Amino acid sequence: MKSDAFSRRGFLHTAGAGAMGAWLPRTPRVRDAEASLVGVSKWDLDTPALCVDLDKLEQNLATMKAKLAGTGVATRPHAKTHKCPAIAKLQLAAGAVGVCTAKVSEAEALFANGVDKILMTTSNVTANKIRRAMTIRKTNRNFIQAVDYEPNARELNDAAKEAGVVADVVIDVAVGTRSGVPAGAQALALAKLVDKLPNLKLRGIISYDGGAQHIKGFSTRLERTLQNFEPSVQTHDMFKRAGLSTEIFSGGGTGTYNIMTKVPGFTDLQVGSYIFMDAQYLEIGGESGDVYTDFVPSLTVMTTVLNTYFPGRLTTDAGAKALTLNKPDAIVIGEKGFVYNAGSDEFGSIRYETAAKTYKVGDRLELIVPHCDPAVNEYDVIHGTRKDRVEVVWPISARGHSQ
Amino acid sequence: MKSDAFSRRGFLHTAGAGAMGAWLPRTPRVRDAEASLVGVSKWDLDTPALCVDLDKLEQNLATMKAKLAGTGVATRPHAKTHKCPAIAKLQLAAGAVGVCTAKVSEAEALFANGVDKILMTTSNVTANKIRRAMTIRKTNRNFIQAVDYEPNARELNDAAKEAGVVADVVIDVAVGTRSGVPAGAQALALAKLVDKLPNLKLRGIISYDGGAQHIKGFSTRLERTLQNFEPSVQTHDMFKRAGLSTEIFSGGGTGTYNIMTKVPGFTDLQVGSYIFMDAQYLEIGGESGDVYTDFVPSLTVMTTVLNTYFPGRLTTDAGAKALTLNKPDAIVIGEKGFVYNAGSDEFGSIRYETAAKTYKVGDRLELIVPHCDPAVNEYDVIHGTRKDRVEVVWPISARGHSQ
Repeated sequence: MKSDAFSRRGFLHTAGAGAMGAWLPRTPRVRDAEASLVGVSKWDLDTPALCVDLDKLEQNLATMKAKLAGTGVATRPHAKTHKCPAIAKLQLAAGAVGVCTAKVSEAEALFANGVDKILMTTSNVTANKIRRAMTIRKTNRNFIQAVDYEPNARELNDAAKEAGVVADVVIDVAVGTRSGVPAGAQALALAKLVDKLPNLKLRGIISYDGGAQHIKGFSTRLERTLQNFEPSVQTHDMFKRAGLSTEIFSGGGTGTYNIMTKVPGFTDLQVGSYIFMDAQYLEIGGESGDVYTDFVPSLTVMTTVLNTYFPGRLTTDAGAKALTLNKPDAIVIGEKGFVYNAGSDEFGSIRYETAAKTYKVGDRLELIVPHCDPAVNEYDVIHGTRKDRVEVVWPISARGHSQ
Repeated sequence: MKSDAFSRRGFLHTAGAGAMGAWLPRTPRVRDAEASLVGVSKWDLDTPALCVDLDKLEQNLATMKAKLAGTGVATRPHAKTHKCPAIAKLQLAAGAVGVCTAKVSEAEALFANGVDKILMTTSNVTANKIRRAMTIRKTNRNFIQAVDYEPNARELNDAAKEAGVVADVVIDVAVGTRSGVPAGAQALALAKLVDKLPNLKLRGIISYDGGAQHIKGFSTRLERTLQNFEPSVQTHDMFKRAGLSTEIFSGGGTGTYNIMTKVPGFTDLQVGSYIFMDAQYLEIGGESGDVYTDFVPSLTVMTTVLNTYFPGRLTTDAGAKALTLNKPDAIVIGEKGFVYNAGSDEFGSIRYETAAKTYKVGDRLELIVPHCDPAVNEYDVIHGTRKDRVEVVWPISARGHSQ
């Protein structure tokens, strides 16, 4: 088929908009109705709506600060969780030494919105992304980049030179087989190279054990986390003996925040989920029980009941595009007998035998999300509420920034 | 607004609409670098990058048109798949009688970008969403709304009256237990009510069997689809006998497009995935084999290899936020021995025993996504390529519009 809609006229319009559209947002993303949402009850929002209870968010920030007091370990929270400059600023105000990003496009969005202390935990391995990172570095002295390959270190050095900067770099030391340079001799050799390259400045080590965060049961998690991290600790010692910078020794997460404090020389935690919590973290268990109660669930999705015709079932408007397919299932607050299935793209399906009330079409339900990071990534804004009223609507500026 | 939605005039029109309570752009989502991407090889794009091969997309549009020729059944493609006004326009140009949306916010985004023939397949059950829908209807005579409850029909009638319109409505007849009014007497009673309400105009029936689309094996799918749909057919006949409109009798999807044509009185197919295809649809099997080859995979995600240190493994930059957690796993084109795991939010993990080449950091891979609809929803733009070169960059205007 020769498509009519690829007509020259239509095509030129598209191209034309691109040419002139430097920062003209082509696709309006946020309704202006939002401004008028302040003061509205979260139970009256159009749904699905992502909400954070500000009292609980602040409680989680305060809890983390209190728990780390006197340990000598700081936080460098991972912004991939919230992708929201406003929340990054709250974390910095609560004493964080900086924030992390997973992607260069996240770093761009945060920096463009007034957050400058950024450590990007993934290496940029292509020329264009390295250029994007160095563009940030040119105007942001507090931007730190990760490296895990020698050729990549040389490319970063060349790009830093071209940008006229000395770029701050940390060595990403692998725990497991996902990312990073293997611990030990290879990591040390890479650090020595970075230390020598004139346009790079070695700042230390990042080393993240993704698998450790959700190990169920505190004692098992404690044991395995420290065991898995031992090669990184040894690498850290090798750096020290070689006179290389260990100013930063960063890693850990919400599941291991009170474990990593036991690691000698460890400087800061890349905690993410602690501000929000989710169904996944609730079930990992804490030091004193099967439910992880160190932090309180602050993040929820409001949804609306669409269908009540069928016995033992309800249909809602929050499916996989509102909650993701992560497990365990979303938790319906106040309805212990509800099993929530977000397997359909557009609809949630609830099965139940007992319910606290009789539901009718239009009723709202509040859900704890399965896994906070990818759920947040489905939304353009997060409604900050206090005593159930919207106090602020924050843009999730780095939403969808997976590059 | 007409088809020049991307022109300066179109943009101002959109911005102007904001003042009336529709849209106000706040967060620039699309990098200005995009304009310069035209002509670039998809193998050089920053990744993860969502791409559609335009030759294959056009082939799928042409195939559907050819397969339906002479059947008397039209397409009314579901825009929840692509959320992209440009693709909706291609479908209309290829003969579609309209498009569907699942959410009112999708309908708003499409209409704001020049698509007017819209049937919204989900009922709006709250006052504010009904108001949003009627706001569309006030300026769009081609907007059709679904209803599945009597009280809701009365609310729609009141809102239509307030908006000064007679709103077009279809009855959503349930197949299964997810959405819609139960087939038979309840559906008939609702239709009679709609027919009587002065500010509603009954246009017919929609009836969608979500579960049928992915039944493996054509003969089983054929049998079960027609069996499941029988109550809807009987309801359609009841409408006819009662002198109610059956002008629209819409349903079906990509997995049943060549089955629903056998349903008497059936008018149009809500096909979505046929334009893109995905790993899920490939495995449902076609009339002549285990692989569903009626349409060709046109949609892919480009990803970059980040880590090659560990034997039998590769790490890429496309994880759950780039591909979703849908199963089956993403397919690496050209590497039959690769097992792709997108279970990590930010990283893809590949396990392999044999590979067509030795990969190094920075190499690109091209992936067929697990399930096209939610994967598209992770991106702001889709790169339309021809012979691997970017020809156009389309905004996914309704991305994240889950309300």
